Amino acid sequence: MTITLEQANTIIGAALDHGGKAGFNPLTVAVLDPGGAVVALARQDGSGFARPDVATGKAYGVLALGMTNRQIAARAADSPEFFTSVAALAGGKIFTVPGGVLVRSASGELLGAVGISGDASLNDEAAAVAGIEAAGLTAVTGAE
Amino acid sequence: MTITLEQANTIIGAALDHGGKAGFNPLTVAVLDPGGAVVALARQDGSGFARPDVATGKAYGVLALGMTNRQIAARAADSPEFFTSVAALAGGKIFTVPGGVLVRSASGELLGAVGISGDASLNDEAAAVAGIEAAGLTAVTGAE
Amino acid sequence: MTITLEQANTIIGAALDHGGKAGFNPLTVAVLDPGGAVVALARQDGSGFARPDVATGKAYGVLALGMTNRQIAARAADSPEFFTSVAALAGGKIFTVPGGVLVRSASGELLGAVGISGDASLNDEAAAVAGIEAAGLTAVTGAE
Amino acid sequence: MTITLEQANTIIGAALDHGGKAGFNPLTVAVLDPGGAVVALARQDGSGFARPDVATGKAYGVLALGMTNRQIAARAADSPEFFTSVAALAGGKIFTVPGGVLVRSASGELLGAVGISGDASLNDEAAAVAGIEAAGLTAVTGAE
Repeated sequence: MTITLEQANTIIGAALDHGGKAGFNPLTVAVLDPGGAVVALARQDGSGFARPDVATGKAYGVLALGMTNRQIAARAADSPEFFTSVAALAGGKIFTVPGGVLVRSASGELLGAVGISGDASLNDEAAAVAGIEAAGLTAVTGAE
Repeated sequence: MTITLEQANTIIGAALDHGGKAGFNPLTVAVLDPGGAVVALARQDGSGFARPDVATGKAYGVLALGMTNRQIAARAADSPEFFTSVAALAGGKIFTVPGGVLVRSASGELLGAVGISGDASLNDEAAAVAGIEAAGLTAVTGAE
Repeated sequence: MTITLEQANTIIGAALDHGGKAGFNPLTVAVLDPGGAVVALARQDGSGFARPDVATGKAYGVLALGMTNRQIAARAADSPEFFTSVAALAGGKIFTVPGGVLVRSASGELLGAVGISGDASLNDEAAAVAGIEAAGLTAVTGAE
Repeated sequence: MTITLEQANTIIGAALDHGGKAGFNPLTVAVLDPGGAVVALARQDGSGFARPDVATGKAYGVLALGMTNRQIAARAADSPEFFTSVAALAGGKIFTVPGGVLVRSASGELLGAVGISGDASLNDEAAAVAGIEAAGLTAVTGAE
């Protein structure tokens, strides 16, 4: 199973709506399938030209390792060299800061991931969670 | 000036609508700003995982060289080695087949480009043109 | 809008003049458009052969993230892994040290960036600011 | 010995002047030292964002192989696979089409190369030759 384009568009719309209401900076939202390929991406006017790469990388990294950003951060704290190596392997598409969120179905199946870049990392993540929940799906951030 | 996210979404919606009515294979549509960065991208369910790269590359190439796919194809026919070199310089993000379409404003200003991949190249291009025109913008394909 | 070649040449001339009068090492100056492509570059005799890449990278990084070197440095101090990832994504074209300066018009519009390499980072930056101001434009360094 | 920044600036000024008088498209001119590093580069307003890479690549290729574009073209005609391999080795910075011109001193010493992109290849080359000769140096194109 994989996230559908319709679900991805719902997520993007709701995430950007969340950011707009909260007064966030312009955001870029990327939705990836479980294989790490982009399903949909939207960059708001004024969001910098590197943001698509960062947003995609945030989602790619959590999928690539099957870990949340917080788990990756803990692993990097435990072994900075591990992070250096996997970051190089992935061409930089691995992040420790929040903003890459795994997406699961109601039954727990992995459907993909959402990455957001543009504001503070926790705000990016909050927008991703709002988008995922608006699509009736489960957001996995690793936050307790 | 650059294409806005709202214009990009209109283009994507109308391009996919065109493909659906025409019975095309699932499509991936990428909309890029004049500097070659993605503004919005949508991959229909069933469109392969390399399609985002191909769609993005089609749009990138026409922007990078300021030439239509047909002009690039004529240049490549005249000098295959020229194409080999520029394709390597651009990391493969240059195509000679149709499906990358420059977008201009009513006053002729370059706003970006649309790239589509998924069906026959001329069908990809037709969907891009339909999308661009639905947004009230001018599509430049180089076709006579 | 984008910086013009004429403005870029004025910036380069004034930056090198500043460096000469201040007794700086030979400098390399790169002027980039808002999309991160080079408009003009000059490397003074005796400036090492990697300086064009460094000067270009300093300007590229502040444009790519829409942040000053000081903001990037603060972000990297907060999360070294964030910097590792974005530096890899950008192929190294992101710097935390001063010397990449955003260029805005009198009305505040982003026109591009200037990157200088060759002397101490704060001297590189001072030369960039001198160049930008000589062109009647606004330099954004993030320094208080 | 290497070309100086002053010589490079003279070359660029005269090459762009030649293009302007001849009614060429906007040009990008790159001047490289014998080691293949950029000394100076200028991109006229309206010249596409990939032109700096193409102009630099044209100059880089003739230096990298120590051959003119025409010699490289003859070699590529003799063995297309040779060209494919060296183009890949150089990351695309090798061209068979005219527009990369070796620069020699009056005594025949290699000082660098000039690459121009933006108009027809022979026009690009003519502008490079005009620039090099304006600096009192010898242009080597391989044309008979």
